Amino acid sequence: MTTRIGLLLFPDLTQLDLTGPLEVFSRMPDAEVSLLWKSREPVASDRGLVMLPTAGFAECAGLDIICVPGGPGQIALMEDTEVLDFLRRIAPGCSLVTSVCTGSLVLGAAGLLTGYRATCHWSSLDQLALFGATPVAERVVRDRNRITGAGVTSGIDFALAVVAEVLGEEAAREVQLQIEYDPAPPFDSGSPRSAGPELLERVSARIAPFIARRRAASEAAARRLG
Amino acid sequence: MTTRIGLLLFPDLTQLDLTGPLEVFSRMPDAEVSLLWKSREPVASDRGLVMLPTAGFAECAGLDIICVPGGPGQIALMEDTEVLDFLRRIAPGCSLVTSVCTGSLVLGAAGLLTGYRATCHWSSLDQLALFGATPVAERVVRDRNRITGAGVTSGIDFALAVVAEVLGEEAAREVQLQIEYDPAPPFDSGSPRSAGPELLERVSARIAPFIARRRAASEAAARRLG
Repeated sequence: MTTRIGLLLFPDLTQLDLTGPLEVFSRMPDAEVSLLWKSREPVASDRGLVMLPTAGFAECAGLDIICVPGGPGQIALMEDTEVLDFLRRIAPGCSLVTSVCTGSLVLGAAGLLTGYRATCHWSSLDQLALFGATPVAERVVRDRNRITGAGVTSGIDFALAVVAEVLGEEAAREVQLQIEYDPAPPFDSGSPRSAGPELLERVSARIAPFIARRRAASEAAARRLG
Repeated sequence: MTTRIGLLLFPDLTQLDLTGPLEVFSRMPDAEVSLLWKSREPVASDRGLVMLPTAGFAECAGLDIICVPGGPGQIALMEDTEVLDFLRRIAPGCSLVTSVCTGSLVLGAAGLLTGYRATCHWSSLDQLALFGATPVAERVVRDRNRITGAGVTSGIDFALAVVAEVLGEEAAREVQLQIEYDPAPPFDSGSPRSAGPELLERVSARIAPFIARRRAASEAAARRLG
């Protein structure tokens, strides 16, 4: 049985939100992974990496797993009816509806997280509540068939959890060994809790204007959702 | 002072070897990151992701940091004089000469690790000795201005160590918070030590023919090096 996995590849995404899970999924036995966008034209991520989609929305007949990564371009997605309609068309046939980082806000804008527990990048976690979701400050959150990952690098933990869900723990452990995922960060500042108040304040202050813009877009998307 | 960082983007590379460090480096203040290949034509990774280089070798006048990722395509690189000559031209002007995963074998084939301690993906670590390097089973290994990372995901730990080296610990800690790098693997099987003998044996047996092919290529490259 082939597992059909589709990752959304959109302009100004944060590339590691996608490439982390992609590395894991592409090593999953019997998986067929596609990178989906409106067309197959090259797509530029938020910091310059240009990647090619493998299929347009129209070519995608159905999926077992849909995954929406995040990044600054997620703001435009929340008001893009072509994208939201695609997600609403595909999601009901999926056994797992998933996201990494602020991709969960796009699922929220499509009405796909209403009544679900979910997570997001720490900077924007609270915005999930605008879509009727319950924000959970954990690295990977599962609620029924929704699995959401927190910020950027959590996509690797998330994807291993998905492999375990679909094929069992042994398959996930094998991929983990292949990609030598035995993390040893040189510092301990990867979460708001561990970063300490000074660093958290400095980063938060710098990104505050952008987060406010994201919030306005989330509020508008939530209003359209009704 | 701009830090000019170049990552080699070559056919059949393992994309996360490159995209992990790229996400870190592209968030480094005053860094100018380029993806280098022979031309700007699209390059396909080992499992399908197609990416665009940002500059050809001829456009690259000099770098502060060169980084060579790994992956199956590394075998072809070890006998590609255009690539080896580029590395030999660029490396002497770099303050850091680096690699992730089996990229260290390419540095070795270029004669750039002779007499250095270095690391590599666990499956191929011992092959470093063919190039006169001392294999070290650690996640990130530094010897003078050589910094090498172990398999695939170690590129994230590696890149944070590089940021700390260039700009100091606070800058690295800030990037770590941005990418929410607070890893929590669902399983503990990311290294040969933690995977346990059964899983290690199964994965090793399956990749044995490929590792033998890599070894033959490393031996040939070492002979050419003299």
